[in-house]
Amino acid sequence: MSSAELDEMIKALSHPVRRDILNWLKQPEVYFADQEHPLSLGVCAGKIDQKTGLSQSTVSAHLATLQRAGFISSKKVGQWHFFSRNEEVIQHFLTRLNDQL
Amino acid sequence: MSSAELDEMIKALSHPVRRDILNWLKQPEVYFADQEHPLSLGVCAGKIDQKTGLSQSTVSAHLATLQRAGFISSKKVGQWHFFSRNEEVIQHFLTRLNDQL
Repeated sequence: MSSAELDEMIKALSHPVRRDILNWLKQPEVYFADQEHPLSLGVCAGKIDQKTGLSQSTVSAHLATLQRAGFISSKKVGQWHFFSRNEEVIQHFLTRLNDQL
Repeated sequence: MSSAELDEMIKALSHPVRRDILNWLKQPEVYFADQEHPLSLGVCAGKIDQKTGLSQSTVSAHLATLQRAGFISSKKVGQWHFFSRNEEVIQHFLTRLNDQL
């Protein structure tokens, strides 16, 4: 993880909505219990839009930022996009930040 | 620590020079061994300027950002400003971030 990558990851976390999304995706069975598709696919973009109460395009930009930073991945199934956390990347990031600070 | 405060702290860390400064201040006896004033006062702004190789005004802005975020404190002695880490704030921040991610 280069210093520039670390910068991008830190910036991705500097918005409360993006931290909320990461946090919700940690426990999809708690926060997205009403999703019809199996949660093993990830959480559907539309469910995340709903939960934030923000517009689809705004949430889509937040998800793209988190994905560029490596914190989440997406899977396309039919017409739907499902998002899930990359736990290894998140742990690696936290370890690196704990070491550096 | 409010969400807005957490935002400000995360943003303060999103520049590699600011992370370097925090890291150097963790071991002043390693990184600023040649400081004439006692290191117990903190590290003199001028020594930090030198170590970054950047201009005084640039480093001054970085230090102000770290100070606003609560990560460092300054002490004025005579004509000099000395900087040191606020370990409690840094630990509190890391705990909060580890919990939230």
